Amino acid sequence: MVSKIIGVAGAGSWATALSVLLAHKGYTVRMWSRHAALAKEITITRENIRYLPGVIVPPAVEVTVHIEEAVREADAVVFAVPSHAFREVLQSALPHLSGTGLIINAAKGIEEDSLRRLSQAFAEVAGPQALERYVALSGPSHAEEVGRQVPTAVVAASSSIKSAEYAQDLFMCDNFRVYTNPDVAGVELGGALKNVIALGTGIADGLGFGDNTKAALMTRGLAEITRLGITLGANPLTFGGLAGVGDLIVTCTSMHSRNRRAGMAIGRGKSLEEALAEVGMVVEGVRTTRAARRLSELYGVNMPITEQMHEVLFEGFSPETAVNKLMTRGKKHETEEVALAAAALGKSQF
Amino acid sequence: MVSKIIGVAGAGSWATALSVLLAHKGYTVRMWSRHAALAKEITITRENIRYLPGVIVPPAVEVTVHIEEAVREADAVVFAVPSHAFREVLQSALPHLSGTGLIINAAKGIEEDSLRRLSQAFAEVAGPQALERYVALSGPSHAEEVGRQVPTAVVAASSSIKSAEYAQDLFMCDNFRVYTNPDVAGVELGGALKNVIALGTGIADGLGFGDNTKAALMTRGLAEITRLGITLGANPLTFGGLAGVGDLIVTCTSMHSRNRRAGMAIGRGKSLEEALAEVGMVVEGVRTTRAARRLSELYGVNMPITEQMHEVLFEGFSPETAVNKLMTRGKKHETEEVALAAAALGKSQF
Repeated sequence: MVSKIIGVAGAGSWATALSVLLAHKGYTVRMWSRHAALAKEITITRENIRYLPGVIVPPAVEVTVHIEEAVREADAVVFAVPSHAFREVLQSALPHLSGTGLIINAAKGIEEDSLRRLSQAFAEVAGPQALERYVALSGPSHAEEVGRQVPTAVVAASSSIKSAEYAQDLFMCDNFRVYTNPDVAGVELGGALKNVIALGTGIADGLGFGDNTKAALMTRGLAEITRLGITLGANPLTFGGLAGVGDLIVTCTSMHSRNRRAGMAIGRGKSLEEALAEVGMVVEGVRTTRAARRLSELYGVNMPITEQMHEVLFEGFSPETAVNKLMTRGKKHETEEVALAAAALGKSQF
Repeated sequence: MVSKIIGVAGAGSWATALSVLLAHKGYTVRMWSRHAALAKEITITRENIRYLPGVIVPPAVEVTVHIEEAVREADAVVFAVPSHAFREVLQSALPHLSGTGLIINAAKGIEEDSLRRLSQAFAEVAGPQALERYVALSGPSHAEEVGRQVPTAVVAASSSIKSAEYAQDLFMCDNFRVYTNPDVAGVELGGALKNVIALGTGIADGLGFGDNTKAALMTRGLAEITRLGITLGANPLTFGGLAGVGDLIVTCTSMHSRNRRAGMAIGRGKSLEEALAEVGMVVEGVRTTRAARRLSELYGVNMPITEQMHEVLFEGFSPETAVNKLMTRGKKHETEEVALAAAALGKSQF
């Protein structure tokens, strides 16, 4: 049997960890980096020192700077680039894609200008009929840990159950468990919006608040993500799953999380610019806060934590004021807003 | 206006933190301890050195060893005792209760022999008509942090919205936010069952696994708690709230959590007995694992993490074997088991 060829667009930490996993499973991996120096370094040293230090990259992972070489013969292509680069990288890859292979997107975010989820951007670029070959891969999966073969569980979401199961078979192994889910919208929104809450819990940590505060922010954050998700057509159950609460937990509690670290710096008194400089990598939650705020206004969904995050990041309010406003809102029934959002859409069980 | 009198049954960390909060709000608090030495010490030193060191207990908190003194004139009584003592303490207090005041239960657990939730035990002792005066108080609220006035959010659940709102008014202040919820069963099950998962994530931590593993265990743990909850008549939304995922998060990630600490000791190779000795306080999750396992069998609900926890705690299996079994189960669709449990009960939206 000839080994399958998998293309990987991107050479950051997540792209590298997934490439290594696929190589261990016996696939030939062709990884694309836009940076010639990085491609060369990985090829020679068999390590991605900058983004995934300490993990050996097996010879079955070939690195190229030409996207067409990475994707041309690939049975499936994994995209693992920053979300704001997804559309552009997809466009450059599209002429070289087989037209039948799976597209697996591991990026998490919402396009800031268009407010599109990444599957919507994909449909605009590749055509809506191509969506049946599109899979969103998401869940609590720090690349550093997947690289060390730490037990991890993720979700593969596609409108086509066949495509989701193909991705499940592709990645699943003893240390990497893959669940399927048909709710692409929910999985994408969970993966993107959790970064806003991670910035917020980071700020609470930076201010010196406790585990109670953090758990409350995460829980109420999940509630407002779920409200927006229901309004945008997602299945509320998805937000209780790996791409929802699972990813939220790991992003809000792990020191691997860039969004959390940026928030902690802000909570300790740094400006947004200083905090981003301190982290030194893409902090998806900053753009996502703007996008989420606009979505909440467009669709009339009450999102008090997102609102406060917007005030702290972009309107000059202090983190202390934000926490104070959240704690002294009017008295609430816990699930009524979720129930109302669902009822308005005819989902009477909520 | 004469200040209201609130009785508090119990003098552990949670009982003390709630008493201090109520005293700060201007109530007269009568706290009961079964231990004369502890009652005397708190009265003299104005500190509960053993259970809540570093927090000043205001003079408005009177401590007594006679339960009738604590509850006789009380407008409401808060029970904050270990769950296995709740029924007995309630029985001793019952003859002295006003018959109209609220009963607020802050204990979390399932009776091991009867498999009753605490509101069910309450109804058996006080009569079902008394349930309209019963409120379950739950959520992510480590006493140590509430004692330090760290921002905290909890839920007050009652079949009577009036009673839930009374409890909300009683406790709510700038640093302590109370949401109401009519789903007593869900709030009680979430508060009890999360301790099983906290033991499990503690074991994973003790074995040296990572944040990905922990988030996966918590997410899949929440899914099995939700499945059992739906079967027992709870609202699935409750498990996405403060008494569900909120409490799960704080219990699985905080070093304040006894259940987590006991699990960590087991993960590092200690026996159950050694781990319990190391923690030195009640570890609710051990009894709850037995109760949850029996409930899952009685009602035919698939609870793989609970099952593995039972094998590790009581059947001599190694933690490594348990993790391995969880990671190599058959391939799954993420939400199908929750959806099936709900569908079987006619809740078609899941």
